[in-house]
Amino acid sequence: MAAMSVHGFSYWDLLLRNAAVNADLPVVSGAFGIWSHAQLKVRAEALAQQLHAKGVAKGDRIAVLASNQPEVLQLLGACSRLGATLVLLNTRAHAQEIGALLEDAEPALVFAEASLGSLLAQAPEAVVCHELDTLASMDLSEVSLTATQTLPPPEANAPLVAIPTAAINGRPRLALLSDSTLLHQALQLAYVWSLGPADRHLCVLPLFHMAGLGLTLAGQLAGGASILMPRFDAEAAAREMAFSRVTYFASFSPMLEAILDAAAHGHDLGSLRVVTGLEPSEVVDRLHASWPQAQFWSGYGQTETGGMVSLSPSRDLPGSAGRPLPLVQLRIQAADGRTAAPGQSGDILVRGPCVFSGYWHRLAETAHAARDGWHHTGDRGRIDERGFLWFEGRAPEKALIKSGGENIYPAEVEQALEAHPAVMRAVVIGVPDKRWGEAVRAICELHPGQTASAEELIDFVGNRIARFKRPREVRFEPHLPRREDGSLDREAVAQAHRAD
Amino acid sequence: MAAMSVHGFSYWDLLLRNAAVNADLPVVSGAFGIWSHAQLKVRAEALAQQLHAKGVAKGDRIAVLASNQPEVLQLLGACSRLGATLVLLNTRAHAQEIGALLEDAEPALVFAEASLGSLLAQAPEAVVCHELDTLASMDLSEVSLTATQTLPPPEANAPLVAIPTAAINGRPRLALLSDSTLLHQALQLAYVWSLGPADRHLCVLPLFHMAGLGLTLAGQLAGGASILMPRFDAEAAAREMAFSRVTYFASFSPMLEAILDAAAHGHDLGSLRVVTGLEPSEVVDRLHASWPQAQFWSGYGQTETGGMVSLSPSRDLPGSAGRPLPLVQLRIQAADGRTAAPGQSGDILVRGPCVFSGYWHRLAETAHAARDGWHHTGDRGRIDERGFLWFEGRAPEKALIKSGGENIYPAEVEQALEAHPAVMRAVVIGVPDKRWGEAVRAICELHPGQTASAEELIDFVGNRIARFKRPREVRFEPHLPRREDGSLDREAVAQAHRAD
Repeated sequence: MAAMSVHGFSYWDLLLRNAAVNADLPVVSGAFGIWSHAQLKVRAEALAQQLHAKGVAKGDRIAVLASNQPEVLQLLGACSRLGATLVLLNTRAHAQEIGALLEDAEPALVFAEASLGSLLAQAPEAVVCHELDTLASMDLSEVSLTATQTLPPPEANAPLVAIPTAAINGRPRLALLSDSTLLHQALQLAYVWSLGPADRHLCVLPLFHMAGLGLTLAGQLAGGASILMPRFDAEAAAREMAFSRVTYFASFSPMLEAILDAAAHGHDLGSLRVVTGLEPSEVVDRLHASWPQAQFWSGYGQTETGGMVSLSPSRDLPGSAGRPLPLVQLRIQAADGRTAAPGQSGDILVRGPCVFSGYWHRLAETAHAARDGWHHTGDRGRIDERGFLWFEGRAPEKALIKSGGENIYPAEVEQALEAHPAVMRAVVIGVPDKRWGEAVRAICELHPGQTASAEELIDFVGNRIARFKRPREVRFEPHLPRREDGSLDREAVAQAHRAD
Repeated sequence: MAAMSVHGFSYWDLLLRNAAVNADLPVVSGAFGIWSHAQLKVRAEALAQQLHAKGVAKGDRIAVLASNQPEVLQLLGACSRLGATLVLLNTRAHAQEIGALLEDAEPALVFAEASLGSLLAQAPEAVVCHELDTLASMDLSEVSLTATQTLPPPEANAPLVAIPTAAINGRPRLALLSDSTLLHQALQLAYVWSLGPADRHLCVLPLFHMAGLGLTLAGQLAGGASILMPRFDAEAAAREMAFSRVTYFASFSPMLEAILDAAAHGHDLGSLRVVTGLEPSEVVDRLHASWPQAQFWSGYGQTETGGMVSLSPSRDLPGSAGRPLPLVQLRIQAADGRTAAPGQSGDILVRGPCVFSGYWHRLAETAHAARDGWHHTGDRGRIDERGFLWFEGRAPEKALIKSGGENIYPAEVEQALEAHPAVMRAVVIGVPDKRWGEAVRAICELHPGQTASAEELIDFVGNRIARFKRPREVRFEPHLPRREDGSLDREAVAQAHRAD
């Protein structure tokens, strides 16, 4: 029996530690009532034993399709104990996407909330589904100390969760994050926010997003509690914050504004210390004016970096994305591959224990993202003289075009164009469009001596990929701009062609 | 050129991060003045380049023999950048011990404070020594950006420091600690004490001990500063605390009492928030009575666990050694190998990123300490129902006997006794002795049918190892008590034979 390394510390270890140190304090609260740290540990252990009895073993995947429910944490604890990976499915996805993800992930089991069963309509036939609700009524008398000791030991560096994340070629990818990565991030958040056992987190963001999961784990590591909201409701959130003396939460626009509106009807948010997320500056200003004891923290992060990697009070430098967390190395890489000077724009690179383990089933993409010992975020930004990060958006080659509510990945359209014998290189960008939000524009460089009309190329693309992805317009350039290393300078193309 | 893993974060990374984020804030202060975070980074980089030019490469050792001087941090940064290991020699050791350690460590270079040169009298001839003072006057104009880029990348999991630690067979061992271990511990301390850029650490303990080094790194990680005292002086310490508004420090008895005495002559210690270390409860009470804003934190740790692994305000439960840090798993192992029940005594085991990398040149001892996926501290204790650790001293087989100012390792004496043909097993313990502090007492089980007198065995030992290690008294037992696994129950022997 291979033992865990002396250096490992798993999510399961956190449950054990909290069961000893913060035993009777609350850890998670929801419609079912409140679980203490000790109860969560017992529930996770009982579940691990039952899953083990069903044949779930190290390296297996278990998928969960649920709104914010405490059973997600129970599953997380059981997976950590068994060395299995919990695939966190997005309840807002389409049945087709969920089917594709399940086909890719090949989970041993799927736990789904009963009301979300229709989203499993296109799941592969082999997938075994259980109702999540069965976990709540689990018989805990069946926990056997002996049974746990016969389980293989947990591993801190195995993938604990798989989270669907944005793809560059239109297919969602599963980002794998280890116990170690998640707990490092939890400790860094607990440190910057001085979280402790008295802290209360209102989890309005889904647990299948890093922001919701990350803030929940940070509170748990600190011995604090998270109140899980299955779905966002501003009035209910404001009431809960006042009632439970919530101290911190994360929000994506337009949540915070709606909560402030609701609170204006008599809910006291005076217990709030920390608010973070992505919110416009006017709303942040309003928060600070209405509840001056609350501090809004601006940051930058993505699923692949285990959530936020830079974070500062937005009052320190409004508009910036904050400064790196203690164990985070940020680097801006200029077009020539060197580290950019302060204030100079470039690609945002990240290194540290926060970086994810890779993409499930995608070795080449994993290696590419981790090239040269740095995680390449695909985002652009700059770092100023004082170490603050300024986010400048997705890198042009990773841009996502949103047209008529559909996601269009430029790379897919470019590949289709470059399949035409006359086209040497193509750059596809999104341009503002009154009706569709954005429209697809292609800029092509043809092979020397070749010709092709815009209409011909638009038809060519429409016959190869979904018609809504066809360029609305095709332009030609004799020579697309290159960087020093010979790669296309997409930013220059986009800047030249975005406006008119 | 193999790049650092995307998950790595080295001490050198911390210097880089702080040079960007906390550039002009002080990081270290001493007789020479104050260095900012940016200056420390430049000095470490310049030194790395010069050492590289002298041929120092990844995996090499560099030794330093110095009182608390800022150049130790400069060397640490340079070693991290180069992937070299800094051997922190104890200035209180004898020339013979230092000679033996240098022979074992085979450092490429030794940097020594001029006044400590005599301690190098027995260094191997091949060792190249430099005066530490030369680093202070280093020409920083020689820092070359290009030169740094040609250096191999740093590694977070390589051994960054080697610290002499207690041995069980009389020979000091070098404990290796990686960047990763040291920075994890720094983050955990920064978290529990909410350290930030405004914090000031008075380093009265030597940097060649984990306590002095660990608290210095914790402050540095938080963007704070350490004031280094080359040697302890209570009056100077109290004055410095008042003058520099010191917020935290660690102390070993009798330092704290002397500082409180000195402060009574008019030094204001009102800025102190955190005091930790090993101090008797009366002195802790006096600290709390005199300076109620200061909190004494009791803990447990050792070099091999990167310093403290449990830590709580002593007011929470006086006499205990606190509760585990967030990423620390503590386990008490009962004599039968199982996890002890709450309140039951046993061996203290530790797991987590805080655990050291191993002993230099001692693979077998390293593997033994890390058996079953746990670091075996060699200490005894218990964990109560609330998760507090209670320290009960060194395990009997690892006890150190202090007699007449000399260290005597029971294992060495036991080996000598068991070399006698009549002796099957021997247990050696220390017993109180008015004149020598402790005296050596041996309890022997003879082979069936064999005989030997106490006098004969004492002479036998005296002819094999140093005479001061001879037992003062030898007792005989027909059957020494065993544990279930067949191993000697040294604790039972010690309890039965310690008193009279």
